Amino acid sequence: MIGVGVVGYGYWGPNLVRNFWAIPEADLRWVCDLQTERLGGLRQRFPSIGITENFDDLLNDPKVDAVALATPVSTHFKLAMRALKAGKHVMVEKPIAATVEQAQRLVDEAERRGLVLAVDHTFLHTAAVRKMAELVVNIGEIYYYDAVRVNLGLFQQDTSVIWDLAVHDLSIMDHVLPERPIAISATGMSHVPGEPENIAYLTLFFSSTLIAHVHVNWLAPVKIRRTLLAGSKQMIVYDDIEPSEKIKVYDKGITLSPKGHGGEALNSMKVGYRTGDMRAPHLDLSEALDLELREFLNCIATAGRPTADGQAGLRMVRLLDAASRSLAQRGAIVQIEQERVFA
Amino acid sequence: MIGVGVVGYGYWGPNLVRNFWAIPEADLRWVCDLQTERLGGLRQRFPSIGITENFDDLLNDPKVDAVALATPVSTHFKLAMRALKAGKHVMVEKPIAATVEQAQRLVDEAERRGLVLAVDHTFLHTAAVRKMAELVVNIGEIYYYDAVRVNLGLFQQDTSVIWDLAVHDLSIMDHVLPERPIAISATGMSHVPGEPENIAYLTLFFSSTLIAHVHVNWLAPVKIRRTLLAGSKQMIVYDDIEPSEKIKVYDKGITLSPKGHGGEALNSMKVGYRTGDMRAPHLDLSEALDLELREFLNCIATAGRPTADGQAGLRMVRLLDAASRSLAQRGAIVQIEQERVFA
Amino acid sequence: MIGVGVVGYGYWGPNLVRNFWAIPEADLRWVCDLQTERLGGLRQRFPSIGITENFDDLLNDPKVDAVALATPVSTHFKLAMRALKAGKHVMVEKPIAATVEQAQRLVDEAERRGLVLAVDHTFLHTAAVRKMAELVVNIGEIYYYDAVRVNLGLFQQDTSVIWDLAVHDLSIMDHVLPERPIAISATGMSHVPGEPENIAYLTLFFSSTLIAHVHVNWLAPVKIRRTLLAGSKQMIVYDDIEPSEKIKVYDKGITLSPKGHGGEALNSMKVGYRTGDMRAPHLDLSEALDLELREFLNCIATAGRPTADGQAGLRMVRLLDAASRSLAQRGAIVQIEQERVFA
Amino acid sequence: MIGVGVVGYGYWGPNLVRNFWAIPEADLRWVCDLQTERLGGLRQRFPSIGITENFDDLLNDPKVDAVALATPVSTHFKLAMRALKAGKHVMVEKPIAATVEQAQRLVDEAERRGLVLAVDHTFLHTAAVRKMAELVVNIGEIYYYDAVRVNLGLFQQDTSVIWDLAVHDLSIMDHVLPERPIAISATGMSHVPGEPENIAYLTLFFSSTLIAHVHVNWLAPVKIRRTLLAGSKQMIVYDDIEPSEKIKVYDKGITLSPKGHGGEALNSMKVGYRTGDMRAPHLDLSEALDLELREFLNCIATAGRPTADGQAGLRMVRLLDAASRSLAQRGAIVQIEQERVFA
Repeated sequence: MIGVGVVGYGYWGPNLVRNFWAIPEADLRWVCDLQTERLGGLRQRFPSIGITENFDDLLNDPKVDAVALATPVSTHFKLAMRALKAGKHVMVEKPIAATVEQAQRLVDEAERRGLVLAVDHTFLHTAAVRKMAELVVNIGEIYYYDAVRVNLGLFQQDTSVIWDLAVHDLSIMDHVLPERPIAISATGMSHVPGEPENIAYLTLFFSSTLIAHVHVNWLAPVKIRRTLLAGSKQMIVYDDIEPSEKIKVYDKGITLSPKGHGGEALNSMKVGYRTGDMRAPHLDLSEALDLELREFLNCIATAGRPTADGQAGLRMVRLLDAASRSLAQRGAIVQIEQERVFA
Repeated sequence: MIGVGVVGYGYWGPNLVRNFWAIPEADLRWVCDLQTERLGGLRQRFPSIGITENFDDLLNDPKVDAVALATPVSTHFKLAMRALKAGKHVMVEKPIAATVEQAQRLVDEAERRGLVLAVDHTFLHTAAVRKMAELVVNIGEIYYYDAVRVNLGLFQQDTSVIWDLAVHDLSIMDHVLPERPIAISATGMSHVPGEPENIAYLTLFFSSTLIAHVHVNWLAPVKIRRTLLAGSKQMIVYDDIEPSEKIKVYDKGITLSPKGHGGEALNSMKVGYRTGDMRAPHLDLSEALDLELREFLNCIATAGRPTADGQAGLRMVRLLDAASRSLAQRGAIVQIEQERVFA
Repeated sequence: MIGVGVVGYGYWGPNLVRNFWAIPEADLRWVCDLQTERLGGLRQRFPSIGITENFDDLLNDPKVDAVALATPVSTHFKLAMRALKAGKHVMVEKPIAATVEQAQRLVDEAERRGLVLAVDHTFLHTAAVRKMAELVVNIGEIYYYDAVRVNLGLFQQDTSVIWDLAVHDLSIMDHVLPERPIAISATGMSHVPGEPENIAYLTLFFSSTLIAHVHVNWLAPVKIRRTLLAGSKQMIVYDDIEPSEKIKVYDKGITLSPKGHGGEALNSMKVGYRTGDMRAPHLDLSEALDLELREFLNCIATAGRPTADGQAGLRMVRLLDAASRSLAQRGAIVQIEQERVFA
Repeated sequence: MIGVGVVGYGYWGPNLVRNFWAIPEADLRWVCDLQTERLGGLRQRFPSIGITENFDDLLNDPKVDAVALATPVSTHFKLAMRALKAGKHVMVEKPIAATVEQAQRLVDEAERRGLVLAVDHTFLHTAAVRKMAELVVNIGEIYYYDAVRVNLGLFQQDTSVIWDLAVHDLSIMDHVLPERPIAISATGMSHVPGEPENIAYLTLFFSSTLIAHVHVNWLAPVKIRRTLLAGSKQMIVYDDIEPSEKIKVYDKGITLSPKGHGGEALNSMKVGYRTGDMRAPHLDLSEALDLELREFLNCIATAGRPTADGQAGLRMVRLLDAASRSLAQRGAIVQIEQERVFA
């Protein structure tokens, strides 16, 4: 049994509580929230769980091995650092921290202490994304990754649509692509005076001809959550709105053959088309969060490394930060700092 | 009767011929193409039309009032200029010319001679775009215009996907929006060695908070032709794949109210949501090209100005040119030269 | 406060419990199930509710005003009759009883005692069906009602797809149509040896030219829940799979004008077409079961009559029974017994 | 070269002319129509084709080997019989004749004379139906065939929606199913005074537990052309509205295992579910009519038998006739006369 405390009982916290509660290997000992009026229903449903507004209660409980944070981004660094320093394993709601420096320090602290630091990129544990990661190795040379995530949605206070929504697509992309972006160009706009951007477009460049693009938007009349991922052999469409056929693999693409006969077109290619079957693989629709939390607990038990570890969280913050800087300069290219090797 | 000659009988020319032929006010006198083997079926179907590979046959025929060009972009300037100088009215396939300077010179020549210069932006004459232009005046402050035009399509030789596909969306946008873009940031990539870009993303900035984005792609597994157009009062979805309900108007949006009580948040706004009915107006699905050609003939008869006149064609070339320059610098912002007033 | 007991805690019972629990006007006193192992989680979540396997505990509790039955159909009559005789108001899961005679006796008993007898036709309280009932009065002369409810679904033991699924469509139809069917022709088939039909087609005739049809199927590769309702002025599509635009109203139809000039075609009509806008009215997606239970409690408090009263339940059983008899004769027409007026 | 004459130049005739014209093996010699004003454009486009209002011109031309009839159903028998008696091969628009007796006599006449008699069931030559016929052999025991063909369509004069639309689905079904129906129950309604039914529902019974159903409707607000075909191993959805993925094969179904332990449920089965991938095979979208006409010409050249021969046409008329009789009796079962073996 691994002792767990959950911090933050707003939008996401109840999901953590419900899922930890259902996992036999977890001993959910505490739920902590500063707004204690939120915790009323909790006391009735789960009378055995300790309820507190004092984060120290978790840190001081020697039976708490791990802390899961579902608090506002601005608090991630401080709370996670305190938990790590108290020797607790930590899972942090995405994004892992508000700045690159903070994320780096959390990663360093966890490495130094040999603690598991996970970031809650739940989408990576969905059947659709797991299938996409499995399929991508067979699609040939990857041409592009294009993600759209728009709807008339929850405008977040004090954060832009990039930090709120694009982080999902960037983390999925980070997980399924074999390459990492080296530069970014982002544009966007705010339509609410005094608030951050509610619409944004990100182009990511790689050292190959792979190109990625993310469109996120809180102000769309329809809900679209669709990713196109095209390779030289196959193309994948991931449509998260589809109830069951979320992943479709198209056996289609282009064929290239030398164009010219003489010397005039040595580098030029003729384009042909190839079209075959489409296949929608069966997806196991078990709950992603359950899988994610079980993996987190298992990493604690076995000193393993979670799918979305602190390094992944740090890479995302680097991208979000670079995107924000490019956006402020209306699309000017911003290089992405490459991963520092921990030594 | 207005005498007409069609030049170029490849992909688009036959549509011009078929439509001019069916309009009683048009006297289709000539079809001209350098590849005369293309013209065989034509002779059989329309024995009364003159067939030639010599452009001068049209220019020298005093009964030819107007020339319609459906030839490669690289020939537009030269052919159109010769036709104008011969006193013919001209309709040019999009884009009107290969460079801003060429486009400007055609506009100037037509103005000087009082001839009609039209550019063949057929989409402007579709029922869907006409309806969108009619609806847009009632959607309140316009937040964004987002267009996607992708499929596994005809890779064009020697031209990029921007000049081939984005020109459609830019011309629709030019027609329906009350503002004109002032700057552009574009990104994209070529996946065929030696060929121009086959995927591109364009962000257009305006002097207000309106933002526009166009995604064009020749290499997508699915066909998407969808535009989102959001205003403060209503939002429009234009989906050209839909067989009949191409335009949907959503009576939804956000409401803004001052957030704070004290002085701390003077500029800050609280966001609320408003959701009402959706409506798909009935569209009159008569052929766009027929309407466009009739308008062209009517402008000749009445000294009128077509929906897509030379100035519109010039504006598009300015945008395409600016997009290409931004793309070459990986998203760097490029200012768009504002319209010169002809004096 | 109205005292309530829920009987049956299998598939549907937990929904009744959760909803009654959340309604302040309800005092949920008992949950009864013969399989007491099902009730474990309940005790933990709702410690104040009495748990029993003895139905008499509910009947003998003078604070229990109403009993809600979510038990197998075969038990409905016996349990409901005992509850009515104990002076309790009763809500019964659909269908109200296994035979017409049983349903009639329940109706009679409730009328005699002045008790509320409701049948749980939850769909009638959904926003979509309420909207459809509101719209139907304006669609002109009603031509047909066509419902399809198919997917790869829960094969029910010991009951046919008609009694399990068609009852939903028949009750919606009963609610929204101004006429009642007078005869039925049904066909179907069982593909599981020894089990009732898993696919069925019902045609219902009315005294006018209105015709209705229901296709229900447990063995379909895709989920379809679509109803077409056509009138002389407007046509409605109710698609329950759509996440939000479940109801679409088409302003289209046919126009009839006398065909002939002379005497030869006096009764003959020429058909024209009329096509206008489509509209998807905004639907208030609050939970149907909550509305239904509140209405039930309100009827108890005010001696009112629920939307789906015992008479509605009886009408449905008459239709199901007639459909089963027609199906056994491979489509032979079966007259539907008309409503007996209670005197 | 096979000499061909086309009779009837209304809705369908021009398609026959265009396709025969494009086939090198066909020598299209005559087009015949009583309404000669229809033939004007034809003379201009195809000056080498003889135009006549006299059917005898075709019969008397020794170079005419085959006649294709695209005239009203009421004329099929008379014209086809005259052509056969003149020694011409014949292709008749569907349905082959207005009565079973007429169809039988045409079949007999063609057999006796050794002439090819084809019925124009174009759908059988589409890529989708050919693929379905290919796939059906692997779907296991076939449970049902369910076809819907509805839209707001062309009300036909003097014929019911069964003879106009259901004939398509019945001929596809006849082609892809390994069994033939033995009885039919049909219902329907006319909503235009003095005209035949515009909505109809047909259930077809077979000697196995296979069941088929066809819903045809001229008065629907949306266009649906969807067939479900379920077997014990796989299920197929054929959606003719889909632009390219018209056929989807679902690797899903039910599994049956004996239910009981003792003697009480010897025949009873427990139902389980199986769900695997979905696959949309690539379809070759070449024109069906072209394939059909080439097959007809080839049968003439090689004394072969077309996919839809006179026997198939006769079987369809038997079904249409049985359906009409059942419909007149509101669903009463009507046995289908089994195929007579020609001797």
